[in-house]
Amino acid sequence: MIGRDVASSYDLDRLSIATLASHSALQIMHGAKAEGLRTLLVSTRERLPLYREFSHIIDEIVVVDRWRDLCRQDVVKRLRESNAILVPHGSLVEYVGHECAENIELPIFGLRTLFRVEASQREKMELLRDAGIPTPPSYSIDEDFEDLVIVKLPGAKGGKGYFIAMSSREVRQRLRELVERGLIKDPREALIQKYIVGVPIYIHYFYSPTLDRVEITGADIRYETNVDGLRRLPPRILEEIGIEPSFVVVGNIPVVLRESMLVKALDYGRRFAEATKRKLPPGIIGPYCLEAIATPNLEIVVFEFSGRIVAGTNLYVAGSPYTHLYWNEPMSVGRRIAREIRIAIEKNALHKVVT
Amino acid sequence: MIGRDVASSYDLDRLSIATLASHSALQIMHGAKAEGLRTLLVSTRERLPLYREFSHIIDEIVVVDRWRDLCRQDVVKRLRESNAILVPHGSLVEYVGHECAENIELPIFGLRTLFRVEASQREKMELLRDAGIPTPPSYSIDEDFEDLVIVKLPGAKGGKGYFIAMSSREVRQRLRELVERGLIKDPREALIQKYIVGVPIYIHYFYSPTLDRVEITGADIRYETNVDGLRRLPPRILEEIGIEPSFVVVGNIPVVLRESMLVKALDYGRRFAEATKRKLPPGIIGPYCLEAIATPNLEIVVFEFSGRIVAGTNLYVAGSPYTHLYWNEPMSVGRRIAREIRIAIEKNALHKVVT
Amino acid sequence: MIGRDVASSYDLDRLSIATLASHSALQIMHGAKAEGLRTLLVSTRERLPLYREFSHIIDEIVVVDRWRDLCRQDVVKRLRESNAILVPHGSLVEYVGHECAENIELPIFGLRTLFRVEASQREKMELLRDAGIPTPPSYSIDEDFEDLVIVKLPGAKGGKGYFIAMSSREVRQRLRELVERGLIKDPREALIQKYIVGVPIYIHYFYSPTLDRVEITGADIRYETNVDGLRRLPPRILEEIGIEPSFVVVGNIPVVLRESMLVKALDYGRRFAEATKRKLPPGIIGPYCLEAIATPNLEIVVFEFSGRIVAGTNLYVAGSPYTHLYWNEPMSVGRRIAREIRIAIEKNALHKVVT
Repeated sequence: MIGRDVASSYDLDRLSIATLASHSALQIMHGAKAEGLRTLLVSTRERLPLYREFSHIIDEIVVVDRWRDLCRQDVVKRLRESNAILVPHGSLVEYVGHECAENIELPIFGLRTLFRVEASQREKMELLRDAGIPTPPSYSIDEDFEDLVIVKLPGAKGGKGYFIAMSSREVRQRLRELVERGLIKDPREALIQKYIVGVPIYIHYFYSPTLDRVEITGADIRYETNVDGLRRLPPRILEEIGIEPSFVVVGNIPVVLRESMLVKALDYGRRFAEATKRKLPPGIIGPYCLEAIATPNLEIVVFEFSGRIVAGTNLYVAGSPYTHLYWNEPMSVGRRIAREIRIAIEKNALHKVVT
Repeated sequence: MIGRDVASSYDLDRLSIATLASHSALQIMHGAKAEGLRTLLVSTRERLPLYREFSHIIDEIVVVDRWRDLCRQDVVKRLRESNAILVPHGSLVEYVGHECAENIELPIFGLRTLFRVEASQREKMELLRDAGIPTPPSYSIDEDFEDLVIVKLPGAKGGKGYFIAMSSREVRQRLRELVERGLIKDPREALIQKYIVGVPIYIHYFYSPTLDRVEITGADIRYETNVDGLRRLPPRILEEIGIEPSFVVVGNIPVVLRESMLVKALDYGRRFAEATKRKLPPGIIGPYCLEAIATPNLEIVVFEFSGRIVAGTNLYVAGSPYTHLYWNEPMSVGRRIAREIRIAIEKNALHKVVT
Repeated sequence: MIGRDVASSYDLDRLSIATLASHSALQIMHGAKAEGLRTLLVSTRERLPLYREFSHIIDEIVVVDRWRDLCRQDVVKRLRESNAILVPHGSLVEYVGHECAENIELPIFGLRTLFRVEASQREKMELLRDAGIPTPPSYSIDEDFEDLVIVKLPGAKGGKGYFIAMSSREVRQRLRELVERGLIKDPREALIQKYIVGVPIYIHYFYSPTLDRVEITGADIRYETNVDGLRRLPPRILEEIGIEPSFVVVGNIPVVLRESMLVKALDYGRRFAEATKRKLPPGIIGPYCLEAIATPNLEIVVFEFSGRIVAGTNLYVAGSPYTHLYWNEPMSVGRRIAREIRIAIEKNALHKVVT
């Protein structure tokens, strides 16, 4: 529990919320200020023109040459001097690497041991299944099948590295091509999931260790290029140009769930939190997301999760329809994080919300 | 006017807003609290894990074994003791049945006699036409035609039970199949509407009897499974897998209308309110929705309506772009209902807003 | 600088914000009231039933028989007596014509000389290229090519007058047909742009002359009929009915951008503001929009711009995720305009924000 030890030496009256200059940093900074906390941003030089515009919500910017410098001793020291709690978001591990994210000697608001699980499509699916959450069946590369599947390549990020196929034959051939083109090394690392026909929906949760409850904080639909653009073209043109859909996320669109599905959605959110408590104690801390397909039978089939704040929450800087129900004030997930830290301090329980 | 009589015996200082634990109940409870009213939720046991999380906005939960128990004498008595005004939403009639919803001896915020009209696709369309609102032409099952049509089966709910066809021949064949499979009884009850090419848009209104005005409270697009997912697949795959689109609503997406179309939208909203006053006095009370296609000629063709709060309003728990224009405070439709009741009490006119 | 001269004679304690009754007028009126300014709406008779509902945010309505009457001497005199600053929106030039919009003797919050550039697809693209913003390559009608292109007819408005084609041959043939049907005069005026495969995204900006900064105020996706409806039909039906997609905007859907793309988005917004300063001094004032395709390589290719408030901002009457970051209060673009005017008055610099 590296982080807890560091946190125990902090001056709690002068805490800072720190994060990397990407993903949901503006929301995290904004939320921390709304809760009266100090903020610190770690940024590379080329991002300064954006983040400098927000100096009213960013107290301190630590400029690094490369993201991996986050783990340099002098940078860590600087952050500790600011009593910084690091909030991990979707770019953290991608930018600084596993080694750094897992071992950095700073308190992290979140479950550090989940980073490694998140890196493996297989371990992710296993955690979901252990939680008792419905997931799509998957195929082994050695199986023969005729079925619509989505194939996720190792290290697929932000929607890159997916393809759709209709048989084991097609999957193997395309994986072979990718190996030949040097784009992947080991085709066996690809995850072959049954393609669930329905609509994608991303459900945001927050597990509060101080209140011991799971909150639904929002939902979104990803806006993906080029797949969400291709559908604007007539089928005859689509066929002639023969462009394959890609699933690179460039934005998020708000959505609310049918209220009768919230019962199930909250149940799955709780199962996830429980599973992490069992398998990766102390379990999830703060925000996470179940990424699902809603089927015509109103089933929710979860094909992936994110164990930290997701970019879809950026829609709700002034609060979501759900956070309004809980809090009746403009409560973003960024602010919810800061609120949780504040509650923890008041309860003398900061150790409960960092690892 | 069953409800008015009951309401006249109520202690107006201790009114409760009551609804069933589904559809838009959280918004209704939240809005009532924002207006300083008490709240009461009727819930089955399996929904308690969700709604118990919101005890800060739900003063009282009446647990029933089955939804139809709402009309049991002891439950009605219990609600009357809480001076409960029942707010009907899209699940009420579906859950408790017509008999109960129409005759329950409680004040209902809304027009009770509209329930029966809503149950019949034909009567709904007739009311719209009487109002002078453009609707899609419809075909009789005996007519021969070559045209793109959407066929709505009797009792179609939440987007279930629709199909698209291109000729009378195709319609008849598919209806025959549905009869053979025992899925419908009388094919003559199906509504065969010309498929209007354009985009769907759901426009939310509120008729205020106390202010005698129609307000536009919002708009949404339904998020439907699987039709909104199928479009993510390349045409060649869509054709090979041969899955027919289904239209089951799992969520709602916010949208604003082009402002120049609001003139027409408000006009149709008013025509609808006027038509209900003429044909079903005292006429609509509170929220309703016109469900329309906007065509490339900027026409609004209404293919259906809902005579009560729709799930799309759940997007706007903290207010919609339109309610902000009217009220300049966070005004959901749930809160608007409570506000209307409060205004009615102040004007000594509660009888105007219940039936 | 017609407008500046007029403004210099105004009673600054009794300023009015004036606009035409269309497009984003309600937001503009609402925002002005929020900043404590008076409001004046110029409306034709048939729109009064809508706008009269909002008398709490519209202090004065000047009724005209036809939109072009805006430039009648008596109307201009009336507006001057109200110390009116005219806020141009997307309907202004369309409704009153270039001659009137460019020469009206009223202060305009915006860059008057941009109107003429906006009227020409070619000049618009040239301004973008001069700014150093990536744009789609375009073809001349004399070139031979095999490529997916979008062809924009002269005077294309609100998404009308676009078509997609796959070769120079097809383009020429369809333009010939349009000439024969009398729908266009000179096919050489059509803009033939490479169709960039990706997703459309509309990014809203505000250049503040008083703070000398560019703010990102929001983003939206247009909701277009019938193209966004066609995709709900199965491909086999689409092919049989053979309806070509049309792109008429009837609404707007909210979206947030991936945060790492904001760096680029802000850079392009700044380049645009700089280019207008160089080429059309004093340069852009207030709101504008870059209309772009986001590609799977996370490039932002701008295919058009609007040099004034866009309808997509109507989503954010109570503020957008971005304006909350800057202002931490409900700040619509309409209100931002009024705030800019108020700041200018306080700084004794009204001349900086009108032309």
